[in-house]
Amino acid sequence: MNHATEKEAVPHVVIIGGGFAGLATAQHLKNCPVNVTLIDRRNFHLFQPLLYQVATGELSPANIASPLRAILENNRNVEVLLDSVESVDLENRCVHLAHSELNFDYLIVAAGSTHHYFGNDSWGKYAPGLKTVEDATEIRAKILEAFEAAELERDPEIINDLLTFVIVGGGPTGCELAGALAEVSKRTLRYEFRKIDPTQAKVMLIEPSDAPLHIYPSPLPQKATRALEALGVDVVTGFHVTDVNDRSVVLTSRDGQVHKTIGTRNVIWAAGVKASPLGVQIAEQSGIALARGGRVPVQADCSLETDKRVFVCGDLALFTDPEKGELPGLAPVASQMGRHAAKCIRADQEGRERKSFQYFDKGSLAVIGRLQAIGTIGRFKFHGFVAWAIWLLIHLMYITRFRNRVLVLVQWGWAFFTRDRSARLITGRHRWEKEDAVSERAQSA
Amino acid sequence: MNHATEKEAVPHVVIIGGGFAGLATAQHLKNCPVNVTLIDRRNFHLFQPLLYQVATGELSPANIASPLRAILENNRNVEVLLDSVESVDLENRCVHLAHSELNFDYLIVAAGSTHHYFGNDSWGKYAPGLKTVEDATEIRAKILEAFEAAELERDPEIINDLLTFVIVGGGPTGCELAGALAEVSKRTLRYEFRKIDPTQAKVMLIEPSDAPLHIYPSPLPQKATRALEALGVDVVTGFHVTDVNDRSVVLTSRDGQVHKTIGTRNVIWAAGVKASPLGVQIAEQSGIALARGGRVPVQADCSLETDKRVFVCGDLALFTDPEKGELPGLAPVASQMGRHAAKCIRADQEGRERKSFQYFDKGSLAVIGRLQAIGTIGRFKFHGFVAWAIWLLIHLMYITRFRNRVLVLVQWGWAFFTRDRSARLITGRHRWEKEDAVSERAQSA
Repeated sequence: MNHATEKEAVPHVVIIGGGFAGLATAQHLKNCPVNVTLIDRRNFHLFQPLLYQVATGELSPANIASPLRAILENNRNVEVLLDSVESVDLENRCVHLAHSELNFDYLIVAAGSTHHYFGNDSWGKYAPGLKTVEDATEIRAKILEAFEAAELERDPEIINDLLTFVIVGGGPTGCELAGALAEVSKRTLRYEFRKIDPTQAKVMLIEPSDAPLHIYPSPLPQKATRALEALGVDVVTGFHVTDVNDRSVVLTSRDGQVHKTIGTRNVIWAAGVKASPLGVQIAEQSGIALARGGRVPVQADCSLETDKRVFVCGDLALFTDPEKGELPGLAPVASQMGRHAAKCIRADQEGRERKSFQYFDKGSLAVIGRLQAIGTIGRFKFHGFVAWAIWLLIHLMYITRFRNRVLVLVQWGWAFFTRDRSARLITGRHRWEKEDAVSERAQSA
Repeated sequence: MNHATEKEAVPHVVIIGGGFAGLATAQHLKNCPVNVTLIDRRNFHLFQPLLYQVATGELSPANIASPLRAILENNRNVEVLLDSVESVDLENRCVHLAHSELNFDYLIVAAGSTHHYFGNDSWGKYAPGLKTVEDATEIRAKILEAFEAAELERDPEIINDLLTFVIVGGGPTGCELAGALAEVSKRTLRYEFRKIDPTQAKVMLIEPSDAPLHIYPSPLPQKATRALEALGVDVVTGFHVTDVNDRSVVLTSRDGQVHKTIGTRNVIWAAGVKASPLGVQIAEQSGIALARGGRVPVQADCSLETDKRVFVCGDLALFTDPEKGELPGLAPVASQMGRHAAKCIRADQEGRERKSFQYFDKGSLAVIGRLQAIGTIGRFKFHGFVAWAIWLLIHLMYITRFRNRVLVLVQWGWAFFTRDRSARLITGRHRWEKEDAVSERAQSA
């Protein structure tokens, strides 16, 4: 059936993706004379910048996820549809879903990005990336199971591999993970084992360039490196990954001369993202050439060169700012683009001129660990405690709903003062749970 | 290898299961001259009485689960072992695990219970029970997906089946689930859908006896029935389930004369539990006859008739109190038995006489919904708000760790005043996520 036909004769806006961009569009079309359908495969919006804290057992998934229907409850012109997009047909202005199809007058494609293994997708099996709630709980289980397996193991070499954590990619996520992981081993698990010493765990951060967080102006990358090393993280720069398997990671120097093999059972991928495959369809149908990383170049108003009524926002889009150049794939960029798309639609309805998108750079911050962060706000550079405090405030402000904010604050407070992380659940079937095991435990049996 | 040999020559106490019973034993052996090994397949202790709130989206799993290692961090004589028990050898005083084996001087079997489909295990596929964190998140997804599927559906009959929730079993868990589910549909989801009306969802509670919670003295079961009906729950008494499939549930009256078929896609099993299969092994090796539900009859000191150094505690044990009769499978019974086993071991070490186990009945309460509960404390019966308030206090007191208490309180407070439940995540792959779907959403892509 066709949802659009059931609506009054006002424009139908279809939004693909309930991330920062898509959600912003839906929210800013409130009271605008259009019908909106927001399509997502999940029933919740995820506050992705804090996902690494779920992976390291500080927060629960629900703390950083809000049900889309709840967020949009009072946006009466918005319908949330849980379905997956099979294909987009720009010419016939139609979106084909797994269970239905939708006609649109306006289309906002905010389908985001996914992990990118640079052509080595087989690595994904050994080096999970961190994009979804499932990724986070899997990585959490992987990390905790490594310590558990080490406690059961007798072979010192295997114990060493189990307690070696390699994080590939020195961007914000990689640094945040490395810092948090160092704290998990040095503080949280410190006294919890009887045979192994968790504080002896190795955390390595692999960065091909000269320093992690190199997108930040000097001296911030250097400050970040020192902060990470102070936490006990082994920062390896100038090397990129040339192989990943179940036992080890192979690193190669930039000049290709030097090779290192690191024995490890725990590799986490924080290296690259690739835009959603929907970009390819749009390129084919519009004739627009995709930019690096499969991103779709958009006009000054975030719409397609070939179609003013199709907008591409967020990580999937490539917006080139006259002064600032190519905008990065960050949450603030995504939500501002999404809001701008809504403004353009509103302008169309009211017969006004569309404005060009102006990205307001609130700055960006990366946390390294307890009390440590680096970042820039406007022309100002911050590091250490000040940067960390600003990061804390900004993230609390942005967590979508009030209640989550309180919960996150309580948990951060607890984790900060006790150095404990109690969202440390290994869920799902795991290695020492056998189908045929007769043992049943009091509560899980 | 053999853990025991690595220890000094003090008795080795092996505890199977980190539930209420096993954990209590481990904790109360603190500073006792014994080495303790606690075996569990999970790395956390679960506060099972609140599991239904995870299933209905009010709490996150981590709020009611605490890492066993963290709880026992300062019990230096306790080693936590994540492994599953394959078999117990009472004669050779040895426990065979999936990855090792353990000799014991004392054995505490606290392996709990599992769902019981009365010989119809095939029903499990359609009627999940609520025992583990995975059960809870699966049931949560099942409930939320039913509303989502109904929103997409056009066939009124299928919509009706999707919005019909049948809970089998009118015990505490069944009543708590029914009450919470009624509130989810009537309050939480009320304004969140555009095509269906969630408040029209049917919640049915099936109880073979004359009233739910019939273990409680009159007039409490009647009060409970009225409270449930006030919430919109359809309480069906005098019928038991004779078939469950993917489309419906068949009910049959006690006399076998009347049959009812209820179209539903959502059946939740809260009807029966069966003791862990380990009980069978113990029975075979000790010659002790298992009691109803596969429970192992124990002596006055909670040990086996045939072996003073093997204790069975919690749901797996059947303790018959001279005055109170058979003790029920409740958390307080389990933890008191576990503690008693520890006291007996301590008495042995100090050359004192073992005492008989005295169950101190603090009473029991069952929540029916917002502000509604029933229960008994000693000779006193409570219902309505008073019972609910007492339930709230007791459960807050018992949640294992401080931080969880605060989190639970914050979430209860929020849920209470806003009637919102925001731990409403549908996680894991689900029906409208296809392997080959090209749609990727901004944050989960």
